[in-house]
Amino acid sequence: MKLYDCTVAPSPRRVRIFAAEKGLDLQKVEVDLIGGENLQPEFLKINPRGVVPTLELDNGTRIDEVVAICRYLEALQPVPALMGTDPLTQAVIESRTRHMELDGFLSVANVFRNSSPDFAKRGLPGIAEEVPAIPALVDRGVAGIGRFFRMLEEYLSKTTFVAGNDYSIADITALTVVDFAGWVQQPIPSANAATRKWYEIVSARSSAKA
Amino acid sequence: MKLYDCTVAPSPRRVRIFAAEKGLDLQKVEVDLIGGENLQPEFLKINPRGVVPTLELDNGTRIDEVVAICRYLEALQPVPALMGTDPLTQAVIESRTRHMELDGFLSVANVFRNSSPDFAKRGLPGIAEEVPAIPALVDRGVAGIGRFFRMLEEYLSKTTFVAGNDYSIADITALTVVDFAGWVQQPIPSANAATRKWYEIVSARSSAKA
Repeated sequence: MKLYDCTVAPSPRRVRIFAAEKGLDLQKVEVDLIGGENLQPEFLKINPRGVVPTLELDNGTRIDEVVAICRYLEALQPVPALMGTDPLTQAVIESRTRHMELDGFLSVANVFRNSSPDFAKRGLPGIAEEVPAIPALVDRGVAGIGRFFRMLEEYLSKTTFVAGNDYSIADITALTVVDFAGWVQQPIPSANAATRKWYEIVSARSSAKA
Repeated sequence: MKLYDCTVAPSPRRVRIFAAEKGLDLQKVEVDLIGGENLQPEFLKINPRGVVPTLELDNGTRIDEVVAICRYLEALQPVPALMGTDPLTQAVIESRTRHMELDGFLSVANVFRNSSPDFAKRGLPGIAEEVPAIPALVDRGVAGIGRFFRMLEEYLSKTTFVAGNDYSIADITALTVVDFAGWVQQPIPSANAATRKWYEIVSARSSAKA
């Protein structure tokens, strides 16, 4: 099993943290996203969508998309469970993970990709043809990050972790979103006490360094 | 169990088709998305994210996000399986479902929400505050729909259904995206023979009317 990875990027980091929590040691192949290696013909043969993380199984099958990869790893190594162990907790964890992605990650990505000179012609991930940045998405993204932080604080005021009282893939997702938001100067608002406490706890896990 | 639904909208349709394939009869509560009922205080008490579908369980727990709801229904009624029955097919189906969502659904939504007068101040779903439309997202969305159709044709040239030789949630997702693309005058390209054949088959299933 081989993971096409990019050390600095937030999406593959979700898989690395997930695997580290499970004690799985994946072979990594570094892909230089900043330099656009993922958009070159050689990588597009590996994944025509031009994205990492991509997991390559020993039989050659390749799977992309973070949560699909994580669910495969969860089946291989069910303990510790990070995606729930009964239908209701599984549904809540999946729902909240998507809240983190759709309301959090996509908002930060809108700010980052549409304001960074390096991405002026790469407004979407994985597209080899030019996708011009749209400056108006920066304001939309900043507003979205504000809503994301309010939602996260609301959740963490009620439970220890994002999707209940157990650490899960929803926390891994939220942690990577919060750190990604730091790239665009959108830190956790200082009044969000529950989020700040949670952030200290999840960042201190050794998996956070994976 | 109760499904907050909207008959005309593509996302709740995914859940309705999924439930119909399983012979599950969900109690429905219609929410008028076009009229903005989902953004009124009464509905925001039900789901602060302002979105349908939202599933309410008999114990009062509410779950949103299509795939989280579908996975819960899959656990309740495992036959016929629509999300795979072993780790590898599950991962492939989840990965391809996300391709349909991220590359297909989001592209069509970009065109629809940023070009329809009804949504001029509702550029994102579920947000009660104003989110101005961004006209440049229309071109980005149209280009994305083009890539989506190429990807879909590539998949369907190799297997009968979107994620293999069995009908799955990936087909349900793709069908709703293709029909949603019709709303913005982006039909299946006439040269895409495999997609056209697949579309006839999946649209003819009785679940497609759900």
